Amino acid sequence: MNTRPLILISNDDGYDAKGINDLANFVRDLGDIIIVAPDGGRSGTAMAMTSASPVRVKKVREEEGLQVYACSGTPCDCVKLAFEFLLPRRPDIVLAGINHGDNAAVNVHYSGTMGVVIEGMMKHVASVGFSSCKRAADADFSALRPYIHHIVAKVLAEGLPNHVCLNVNFPERDTFGGVKICSMDAGQWLNEWEKRTDPHGRDYYWLTGNYETPNANDATTDRWALDHGFVAITPIQLDMTAYRAMALLKNYF
Amino acid sequence: MNTRPLILISNDDGYDAKGINDLANFVRDLGDIIIVAPDGGRSGTAMAMTSASPVRVKKVREEEGLQVYACSGTPCDCVKLAFEFLLPRRPDIVLAGINHGDNAAVNVHYSGTMGVVIEGMMKHVASVGFSSCKRAADADFSALRPYIHHIVAKVLAEGLPNHVCLNVNFPERDTFGGVKICSMDAGQWLNEWEKRTDPHGRDYYWLTGNYETPNANDATTDRWALDHGFVAITPIQLDMTAYRAMALLKNYF
Repeated sequence: MNTRPLILISNDDGYDAKGINDLANFVRDLGDIIIVAPDGGRSGTAMAMTSASPVRVKKVREEEGLQVYACSGTPCDCVKLAFEFLLPRRPDIVLAGINHGDNAAVNVHYSGTMGVVIEGMMKHVASVGFSSCKRAADADFSALRPYIHHIVAKVLAEGLPNHVCLNVNFPERDTFGGVKICSMDAGQWLNEWEKRTDPHGRDYYWLTGNYETPNANDATTDRWALDHGFVAITPIQLDMTAYRAMALLKNYF
Repeated sequence: MNTRPLILISNDDGYDAKGINDLANFVRDLGDIIIVAPDGGRSGTAMAMTSASPVRVKKVREEEGLQVYACSGTPCDCVKLAFEFLLPRRPDIVLAGINHGDNAAVNVHYSGTMGVVIEGMMKHVASVGFSSCKRAADADFSALRPYIHHIVAKVLAEGLPNHVCLNVNFPERDTFGGVKICSMDAGQWLNEWEKRTDPHGRDYYWLTGNYETPNANDATTDRWALDHGFVAITPIQLDMTAYRAMALLKNYF
């Protein structure tokens, strides 16, 4: 009987992105790996699901201790399909990434990478997302290797609290000031669109923008940690209830 | 100078859904309304954004106190475009819905309706999402009218705490036991796919599923409130940090 841990990996950059293949290589010795990832880029798809059309999946690679499936759906779809049809049993851990581009701060709400992780958490499996400020398709993630290996080994050994997952982000540079446990920075995106005019005189809009935080000097946030060279580990919870607002609202209605 | 409140409305069922037009009618006397909504159904798109292709928007209707725009993007895109290009000034409130289908419990994570609301909250505008357990395209939402009017008037007058928004869900039936301020039920979806085989012998998968909660008897949750005939108002916060896990994690890494 195979007693090696079972590791499910997905992402939002697609099964053939460098980041997901690096991630699988970095933790290969820790368990059997099944990758179920989108068949192309799905950045910024959050926890979107595919309900208006059917989803397809195909095995694209298989070797000792590693299977790779490509799915026509979203990152969330990948996790849901994996649990129901593709995994031989419940996985011991769900990993996402390495995302080409960070998912710190409010980006946890938009991130397909974190969609994978939140879906895994919802299914009561310890789940961790890895993202790097390096955006290039051929980014060198080798400096992340010891950190990722340590974090995955630790979570496999110790687990995570129920309905808590991890959002791990790495700075742009290759030497880190260590690891910081952070809170989610609560800034916002501004100047979010670039307006253009097509050759037929009609306007269209490209999503872009710059992130602005009112908390730039708050050393407890993940944004601060990244800006100061730390590996940022932000614990994220399923429950979004604003308990602090409940008493006020009971007076409202 | 126009001093009437400015109300931005979006949804994930599309600008021509019955629910969004009912919502606009129900609050028409409370302010000037600008609808910016997807040009078709975008159910279950969460906070997905459109980054791989450009987005287009067109005005489809204009009358005294009401403008309607249809956008090719996601619910989140609609809010972002509205703030940057379509609204004459920052709105006094952002509304979403009425969604055909409830968005209680963990569905806040998947819901395009709540994507609208979370985006509005991120931009520091009081934001409220309305959803009904009634799924039919021609659902009769008239019983919701006094509740929606009261909630919107109250929030326009009193505001909401910073980075807190409201997820309001209505039961299937037409008489309600009153309003309950709730927490987000933390169940999960099971049996999420229906597997079919196409005429060419290839498998494909339709998203479906049934929601299961371990908290069925917990009368504090939104799921319980809906199941017992109450209007469920769940305050939702931007900050997803699992503060309770931070001390543990500091020992981990």
